[in-house]
Amino acid sequence: MNKRIAVLPGDGIGPEVTAVAVQVLKKIGEVFDHQFTFEEGLVGAIAIDETGNPFPDETLQLCQSADAILFGAIGHPKYDNDPTAPVRPEQGLLAMRKALGLYANIRPVNTFKALADASPLKREIVEGVDFVVFRELTGGSYFGKKGRSDDRLSAYDTCTYTHDEIYRITKLAFEAAAKRRKKVTLVDKANVMETSRLWREVVQKYAAEHPEIELELMFVDNAAMALIQNPRRFDVILTENMFGDILTDEASVITGSLGMLPSASVGNQVALYEPIHGSYPQAAGQNIANPMAAVLSAATLLETSFNLMAEGKIIRHAVEEALNFGYVTKDINPDKFMSTTEVGQKICDFI
Amino acid sequence: MNKRIAVLPGDGIGPEVTAVAVQVLKKIGEVFDHQFTFEEGLVGAIAIDETGNPFPDETLQLCQSADAILFGAIGHPKYDNDPTAPVRPEQGLLAMRKALGLYANIRPVNTFKALADASPLKREIVEGVDFVVFRELTGGSYFGKKGRSDDRLSAYDTCTYTHDEIYRITKLAFEAAAKRRKKVTLVDKANVMETSRLWREVVQKYAAEHPEIELELMFVDNAAMALIQNPRRFDVILTENMFGDILTDEASVITGSLGMLPSASVGNQVALYEPIHGSYPQAAGQNIANPMAAVLSAATLLETSFNLMAEGKIIRHAVEEALNFGYVTKDINPDKFMSTTEVGQKICDFI
Ligand SMILES: CC(C)[C@H](C(=O)O)[C@@H](O)C(=O)O
Ligand SMILES: CC(C)[C@H](C(=O)O)[C@@H](O)C(=O)O
Repeated sequence: MNKRIAVLPGDGIGPEVTAVAVQVLKKIGEVFDHQFTFEEGLVGAIAIDETGNPFPDETLQLCQSADAILFGAIGHPKYDNDPTAPVRPEQGLLAMRKALGLYANIRPVNTFKALADASPLKREIVEGVDFVVFRELTGGSYFGKKGRSDDRLSAYDTCTYTHDEIYRITKLAFEAAAKRRKKVTLVDKANVMETSRLWREVVQKYAAEHPEIELELMFVDNAAMALIQNPRRFDVILTENMFGDILTDEASVITGSLGMLPSASVGNQVALYEPIHGSYPQAAGQNIANPMAAVLSAATLLETSFNLMAEGKIIRHAVEEALNFGYVTKDINPDKFMSTTEVGQKICDFI
Repeated sequence: MNKRIAVLPGDGIGPEVTAVAVQVLKKIGEVFDHQFTFEEGLVGAIAIDETGNPFPDETLQLCQSADAILFGAIGHPKYDNDPTAPVRPEQGLLAMRKALGLYANIRPVNTFKALADASPLKREIVEGVDFVVFRELTGGSYFGKKGRSDDRLSAYDTCTYTHDEIYRITKLAFEAAAKRRKKVTLVDKANVMETSRLWREVVQKYAAEHPEIELELMFVDNAAMALIQNPRRFDVILTENMFGDILTDEASVITGSLGMLPSASVGNQVALYEPIHGSYPQAAGQNIANPMAAVLSAATLLETSFNLMAEGKIIRHAVEEALNFGYVTKDINPDKFMSTTEVGQKICDFI
């Protein structure tokens, strides 16, 4: 197989973990005789520093001509406390999502046996947790009209959704549920938001045509509780952009495996894969970041964009072996740990 | 002291827990020789059933002429799966908040020694948790313009905030922090929302004039994680309406004491006190609901609206005694429990 992969390392620990993911993909290429070519692009704070634009045109073109995108993380403390700065790293992220039409962010959340005690939650609550969140990624308050009054003393944001925006991600979520435990939980605030009421209409209509999938309706405040009280009850969670932002981050810490969770952002064309953890600037350049979420993102890339299921499985297996042998970074075992590159090498050795 | 208290029992378990709170207030009246008069009003599903309006004018007038309001809960399953029904119980709640100008919802979250193992989180994470959330309650997406396109295939909600709406609750939150551990965490999404950027401006300006209080800025997705990973880090959390809805519910389950948490909603005139748990219709009429959150709401009422600090303290002490003796409802100890009314009687006996 012959494939072009765009690599966007981004900021903070992004470059370090992405380098490991690329190393793993190269190893897979050798073993299975695939021709993967890798081309790097700029995004985030580093892109602002070098070009003045957090998502330069060359990066867009690189992404559009690639078969898949491997992404690290963005964000730098020098922009953190100034959300009013005219150019900010996260604008690059949002521009990228919009320009590439990445309308669905897919985040599986599951526990790892070797990390059973890493969760802040009790073992009996998180054991066996296995769900996936479908977060809408190109609509809602993120992209609606926003602004200030002339005196700048009042502000507004508009959350908008159309039938078609809701329908296309609903379809993806139901298709995923059909291959899983056949349950979709729609999370919204239909007792307050008109957009949520539209979500309910579209999703309930779709569900009526797909009776093999159970549809559950849940308000977002209730979902924020249920994720902690009984996360095993969830199979597929479907929700809009902002609620998804909050709930996926909440979900990522309940299993104690934040450094282990990959994600995929898909649309009509090329898809993007990234670890769900952020740029974690405090750890940057120290060779201590956990590369496993990036490596599992690479596995998801092979499975989802290239349909290379066996190759994906071998990577997942290699990560599990590394975990079982205790070849882990500091975040997983502060008493006995390896560096980012050492863990990467071990994973490659297991392939 | 001579005071009129409006009592709005509402739906589900609301009437049962409110009855206990009233019984406790009457006992306090006897012991301390205060004249409390109680007048009941309709709100929620029961108000729809009896008058067609979830917040009838008589209830509004009753509230406006009272010295304080004791509220139960609203919501009934017959409306739950139909957020598009023309009249819904929660409209009564929103109308009440707006009409009475209850702009700040204040929810303390703390652990109870007797419940140390009731939390879904590990003991070492929740021990000693003690923070309070100031949620803005009459602005944001809850009350902004919302609607549909003519073909009903697209929908929008508007989130709006003004300088003054932000300023008045900021003042309350900073005043509370001054009496506590002197730290305010502003939770927003300033990397995406214009309203959040206005919140930051107003709050940062206020903080600059009050250097004795430390101001921390946190994005809402990050806050959803931090509440689980390290809830002890919070002292006062300040946030807008929708984020507050989600985070207060998340916060209420981390300590395992959902049935124990009171709240106050304050404005320029009369204030309202209610348990944070909902109407819990499954338990209604069974005499099994935990009345402690309602009783602690009554204590907060005495302290906050009537400045009766000793009386409030005695109620809090009586609740703790009941907990220590194991005089609790089923939610707290499924193996050995009492009924709602029995627990209420025990609390009165301790006064
Ligand atoms: C950086 C920020 C704009 C972004 C978002 O809110 O979507 C991030 O939190 C994420 O979830 O990818
Ligand atoms: C019933 C609902 C409209 C309400 C809200 O979202 O404010 C409730 O969840 C609350 O927190 O009091």
